[in-house]
Amino acid sequence: MTSQDADVALPAETEVALERATAAHRHQHLFSQRSANIKQSAVRDVFDVSMRPGLVSLAGGNPYLQSLPLEKIAGMAQRLIAEHGMAALQYGGGQGTEELRRAICDVMEHEGITGADPANVVITAGSQSAQDVAAKVFCNPGDVVLCEDPTYVGALNTFEAYEVQVEPVAMDEHGLIPSELQRRIEELQGEGRGIKFLYTIPSFNNPSGITLAAERRQHVVDICRKAGILVLEDNPYGLLRFDGQPLRPLRADNPDDVIYLGSFSKILAPGLRIGWALLPDHLQRSFYLANEAVTLCPPTLNQMLITTYLAEHDWLGQINTYRQLYAERCAAMLAALKEYMPDGASWTEPEGGFFVWVTLPEGVDTYPLLYDAIDAGVVFIPGAAFSPSDKPSNQLRLAFSAVPEEAIREGVRRLAPVLGKAMAGAGS
Amino acid sequence: MTSQDADVALPAETEVALERATAAHRHQHLFSQRSANIKQSAVRDVFDVSMRPGLVSLAGGNPYLQSLPLEKIAGMAQRLIAEHGMAALQYGGGQGTEELRRAICDVMEHEGITGADPANVVITAGSQSAQDVAAKVFCNPGDVVLCEDPTYVGALNTFEAYEVQVEPVAMDEHGLIPSELQRRIEELQGEGRGIKFLYTIPSFNNPSGITLAAERRQHVVDICRKAGILVLEDNPYGLLRFDGQPLRPLRADNPDDVIYLGSFSKILAPGLRIGWALLPDHLQRSFYLANEAVTLCPPTLNQMLITTYLAEHDWLGQINTYRQLYAERCAAMLAALKEYMPDGASWTEPEGGFFVWVTLPEGVDTYPLLYDAIDAGVVFIPGAAFSPSDKPSNQLRLAFSAVPEEAIREGVRRLAPVLGKAMAGAGS
Repeated sequence: MTSQDADVALPAETEVALERATAAHRHQHLFSQRSANIKQSAVRDVFDVSMRPGLVSLAGGNPYLQSLPLEKIAGMAQRLIAEHGMAALQYGGGQGTEELRRAICDVMEHEGITGADPANVVITAGSQSAQDVAAKVFCNPGDVVLCEDPTYVGALNTFEAYEVQVEPVAMDEHGLIPSELQRRIEELQGEGRGIKFLYTIPSFNNPSGITLAAERRQHVVDICRKAGILVLEDNPYGLLRFDGQPLRPLRADNPDDVIYLGSFSKILAPGLRIGWALLPDHLQRSFYLANEAVTLCPPTLNQMLITTYLAEHDWLGQINTYRQLYAERCAAMLAALKEYMPDGASWTEPEGGFFVWVTLPEGVDTYPLLYDAIDAGVVFIPGAAFSPSDKPSNQLRLAFSAVPEEAIREGVRRLAPVLGKAMAGAGS
Repeated sequence: MTSQDADVALPAETEVALERATAAHRHQHLFSQRSANIKQSAVRDVFDVSMRPGLVSLAGGNPYLQSLPLEKIAGMAQRLIAEHGMAALQYGGGQGTEELRRAICDVMEHEGITGADPANVVITAGSQSAQDVAAKVFCNPGDVVLCEDPTYVGALNTFEAYEVQVEPVAMDEHGLIPSELQRRIEELQGEGRGIKFLYTIPSFNNPSGITLAAERRQHVVDICRKAGILVLEDNPYGLLRFDGQPLRPLRADNPDDVIYLGSFSKILAPGLRIGWALLPDHLQRSFYLANEAVTLCPPTLNQMLITTYLAEHDWLGQINTYRQLYAERCAAMLAALKEYMPDGASWTEPEGGFFVWVTLPEGVDTYPLLYDAIDAGVVFIPGAAFSPSDKPSNQLRLAFSAVPEEAIREGVRRLAPVLGKAMAGAGS
């Protein structure tokens, strides 16, 4: 570059920079109030880092897809496009295809939801989109949504984008505590606040791995029903119970009071982005129209691919493969925690799903430890990400779903001294 | 069934019905204010009807997929899942894959948008979802969005779901009238109302088929810039100009003031539900986070399939095939209108896209004519669907994209006497 080039280039660059700064300033007043509530999630923060070679990621709750029948699914996609491309690549109905909605009712029967009407199923762009639509249909700014604490970070982001107040309800190792739910509702309604729904992941909660005990389930719904509150039941992991039969979802015995969210992301493939909501009869139309206003219709090819997979593959057998695989990985993680964790740390023992929740003594903040852990070659998600409060958290989430057993063991071995040092520093 | 069965069955049925009615009543107060604004679109109303055998549908703006290289696309999908299934079926980044964002920048270059940064592209669940996210990021209840009148019905539904006031700006056969835009902005801002953006489909507007004249384009942006308003440019049909080069999008010369929306729905396949937004640098982050809060991430398989299609197929050649096909169909429709339409009807002559817009004399309401037309064996969309006002409309949309030339001719032949009769009845 000659000096003449530089002379010309610099002012132009400056001009561009100035123009950008001016535009940013000019548009500052255009943002909606809600946009200030839309934050980067801590889970996303560590996504890029997790990819570093040599690092053991216990952060992401990705399903383990290696055991899928890829050749078979590839053949289905090939056939669908070659033989039914006119339908597969075209617009479809806003509610999703009837074939898939009928197949989804069969899937739900395996969890104990019988007699669901395909007309009450709305197919969504993953479960996340169903959470967004639920907030759209029910929540005004300032309304309250109740949730478990900890709860799914993506749902928190979605609800907060609607300027909703997310209020946690205390839980123990058997899930939400009904008396606490009752107390919290009375308290909030006593203050005149409008509670719209309880958002709950009753089976193998993300992030805690905790399952709402069978004997509490009806009680939780009854409390909400009496208080005039809906239940938004998010159940992506329900079929991934390690042993025995799936627990009856809250929806099974309460068709009029529970909006049930299901997903193919954990039992098949998250990259297809297909979830669904099963609505009470009287809420179906509002939900369906709101969903249509967001995405027009779900992707037709993806719906047909899943319908074909469910019809032609032993999908329950595939789920059984997953159940055994995740059970083994969970066992490996629990064994490693037992072997390596410093005294004073405790953790949940999940009956299914993807996650173990580790609790350190009070006073230890797990967020800054993330960077020490990365230096030690392991990644986790700090507990603060999963709570509607902004307080520091002494807890953290470990995912065992995506990593082989030896890596899980190595990851926990690397993590233990980082936590131990912090606990010693905090005087525990 | 014995009479005993009937005795038992009836009360049970009544009980169920009563319980449902009670639940509906119990949940009535839970709906958000915005949910009252979410309506069934008239386009959807006629979707089912359009499927009746023997009926000619000039209603739906579906692209004509028959000319796609289906075997080739099927092979790509097969290969992607078999060889890259671990990525194609897994979660991806919230912004979309970098490969597709880069390819999208190449696509946009063919319309005159040069030098776009893939980092400023956010991939969305179709263009509809991008409209939803734009409203989420910018609009508080009561805010104003300006639009053409008529405009895309799906965008109206999406904006109204945010309790936005959609205010039309007058247009003529060359598109938005700059002086009217200026006047309307001054009027609304003078009343103290917050205008957030102008939503515009400058090329081959849906439903009118009208194109904003080249010499008006910069003027429209300048007016918005000076008034502190963004432009949301929706350009799904831009590459489908029948003859000559695509007109420069508003975004091309105004990177800081225009949010540009693109889509693969018209140039490839709507069933994949992949669109995108190209953001000004200073708005990228807010838009991206809001998009993530709605759908977490776009479907990975669909993104990889489009990336492969763009890399391995002569996609511009395919678009040229479409351009010729749609030009022929449009010509067939214009010829049939000329031959059959009663005196007093007029229509637009689009330079691209999917639609012709027919205007009947004042006083004729096209909505009730839909049912007469269905009886006569043809479907259209009444004009009222495309206007933010609730007034009756003397206009209607005819789509030529999805139907062969002979059917277009036959459809117009069936429609003409229905319109003629109504016009005679209205005394014109």
